[in-house]
Order: sequence, then C-alpha cells, then structure tokens
Amino acid sequence: MSRSTPSNTYTRIIEAALTLFNEEGERHISTNHIAAHLGISPGNLYYHFRNKDEIIVQLHQRYSNDMMTCIQSAEAPQSLQDVANHLENVFSIMWHYRFLFSDMNALLLRNAELLGAHNVFTREKASPLVQRYLAQLAKIGIIEGSQEDIQSLALNMWIITKYWFDFHGSVRGKRKLQEDSKHLGVLRNLSLIRPYLTEQYRQEWHEVVKDLLSRHR
Amino acid sequence: MSRSTPSNTYTRIIEAALTLFNEEGERHISTNHIAAHLGISPGNLYYHFRNKDEIIVQLHQRYSNDMMTCIQSAEAPQSLQDVANHLENVFSIMWHYRFLFSDMNALLLRNAELLGAHNVFTREKASPLVQRYLAQLAKIGIIEGSQEDIQSLALNMWIITKYWFDFHGSVRGKRKLQEDSKHLGVLRNLSLIRPYLTEQYRQEWHEVVKDLLSRHR
Repeated sequence: MSRSTPSNTYTRIIEAALTLFNEEGERHISTNHIAAHLGISPGNLYYHFRNKDEIIVQLHQRYSNDMMTCIQSAEAPQSLQDVANHLENVFSIMWHYRFLFSDMNALLLRNAELLGAHNVFTREKASPLVQRYLAQLAKIGIIEGSQEDIQSLALNMWIITKYWFDFHGSVRGKRKLQEDSKHLGVLRNLSLIRPYLTEQYRQEWHEVVKDLLSRHR
Repeated sequence: MSRSTPSNTYTRIIEAALTLFNEEGERHISTNHIAAHLGISPGNLYYHFRNKDEIIVQLHQRYSNDMMTCIQSAEAPQSLQDVANHLENVFSIMWHYRFLFSDMNALLLRNAELLGAHNVFTREKASPLVQRYLAQLAKIGIIEGSQEDIQSLALNMWIITKYWFDFHGSVRGKRKLQEDSKHLGVLRNLSLIRPYLTEQYRQEWHEVVKDLLSRHR
C-alpha cells in the first residue's frame, strides 16, 4: 500500500497527532500543525477528520482498547513483583497517551462524544476490573482487608494513577516530564498497597521498591 | 470609603474575578467579563491590573495566606475528630479558591511569577507542615508507622487532596461540582490514614466517617 492511500494517511494523521499532542500539549496543536508536520494539505486532513476533536476521539478509543487489553489479560499475580510488572504496563500505556491526562476535564467538557466514551470506559469497564484485580490479591493472600478497605484502596489507586503524570510534571516545574516518571507512579501505587500486605509479602515489598528506584534515574 | 475609591475597586475586582472563575471556569472569563460584571469600564480595571494573570497572582496569594494560616494554626489534635475537622478546614479553603485546582498546570505554565510563588508555597512552606502534622499524629499515638511510611502517606494525601475536586467533578460528569464534595475529600484522606491508626482509634474512625457521610447529602 502506498503512502498516499487514504487509509494510510488516516493512520499517519492519528500517529502524528499523538506525537505532537504529547510533545507540545494538545491545546497548542491545531489541525494545521498536524497537516504541516506530515507535509499534507489541510484539505487532505479534513477529508479524514472534520476537526481536531475527531482525532482525539480516535486516540481515546485506542487508549481505551490498549488499557482494556492490558487489564483483562493481566494474569493472576503470584508475587508482588507480578503486581509491580502489571502496574508498569498500565503506566506505559498511560505514558504512550499522556496528553490525555494533562488536561482531561477540559477535553471531556468540550466534547460530548468523548465524555460518553470516557464514562463508559471508566465506570463500566476499567473500574470494576481494578476492583476485581485487588479482590484477587486478597483471595490469594497477598493483601488483606475488609471489602470496604479494598474498595477504598481501588479508588485511591485510581485517583493517584490518573493524576500522577500531571502531579509529577508540576513537581518538576518547567522541566519536561521524563519517561522514568512511570516508575515513581508505580511506587505510589505500591505505597498505597503496602499497609494491606500480609506479613509474608512485606519483605518482598522492600525488594520490589528498591528495584523500581534503581530504574528511576 | 465610597465604592469608587481605587482600593475598594481593587478589592471588588479580585472578589468578582474569584466568583466568576469559580462559577464559569477561569478559561472562559476575560477581564472584560469581570469589568462588565462590576459595571465598571475596562479602562478602570486596567488601572488596577494590567491583565488577568495579575488578578490570578493576587488570588493565589490570598489562597496561600489562608492555607498557611489554617495549617499553622491547627492545634495539636486530641482525637480523630480533630483531624477530620482540620481536613474540613483545608477543603473549605480549597473550595473557596476551587478554580485554582481545575487547571492549575495550565495556569502555572503560562505565568512564571505564579509558578515561582506556587513552588515556594508548596515545597518550602505547606509540604513540610503537612509532614509535621502527621509526625505529630504519630508522636501522640493516633497513627504508627516508619518515617518512610509517614512521608509516603503525606505525599499520597497531598496528591489526592490537590486533585479531589477535579476528580469528583469528572465522576459527576456534566453536573456542577457541589460544595458537599468537600466531605468526600476528607473521607479520602481518612481512608489513607486508616491503615496506620493505632488500635485505640480504629473504632472512632468508623464514627467519624459515619458523621461525615451523614453530612454528604
């Protein structure tokens, strides 16, 4: 398939938009920037997407699919290291689509379609799976706590994960967010889990954290 | 002092801006909107403030002062109810200046003065006091944990508090954020503290949470 076929251009637009949104911030990038970046005419871009929000809806769709695949395919963890690896995968997907997390509410408020898709993804799909994952950790004896504890832990992990890149970016001030920020996001989640660990996993916690920090340069 | 004296107008501009930013979102409000709301000319507003960001810097200054006074004047807690009351005060101040928390990074990135003031406030002033407050809770036996635990708890409380209104707004979708969202923000913090409570405070935790939820209509 040559580069000029429509379906190829469609994909190239989405991928260029993702790169530019992540690097420059979504609010600073127009459809004209994306077209110029690809060396295509604005008219060619408009043939595929009526406006920037249509591109964002597609990117959100890809993010949701990637994240659902990641969460659904997580194998039953046998150790805290497995949990950390799973969290690393989650943060890697978020990193890939990180522009979505820097100003999500503004995106959602201006786009009813995106808001609907996001709410379905969050409430009906992803959130129950996070709860189920933690319930599984409790079942096999890695963590212990009441049902209320586990639900509360899931919510706190959700909030801290959602906002981690935004928070860490603000802590680092004007310096650009670095990819190793992912490791510290995993560490935040492990710190939330720590007080619920059963005794036999407490030593492993320190080893997993030490390993994580060694990868955070 | 009549309504038309400059110092009075200065204060009225700041207060009108706060109301409009909170109600409509800072990004939707221009200096012209603020002037129109007050029934003054744009020129009169520009006599006091060169641009919108100068008003925001003043509002951030007021927020910082109010929050520092609140944190510094917190008396040594004797019970978990005292802790909850202190958290309620913190969330009340955040509610008063809630526009600051809906899109803070965008505000900080476009305004070097605000970024500097915010970093000084966060890193040098407020954050050490939060750590000290938790260390005090440990000292008088309300919570227990290693120094690492307490530092991690302080960071998690900071992140969840900072983003609570944004998160809860997104959960509620298009419905406007309600003031009772404050109580659920306090509850999030209490849920983070819970696993670190010493045994004698665990029963009180349930009572404090029940009381909080009864106030969340």
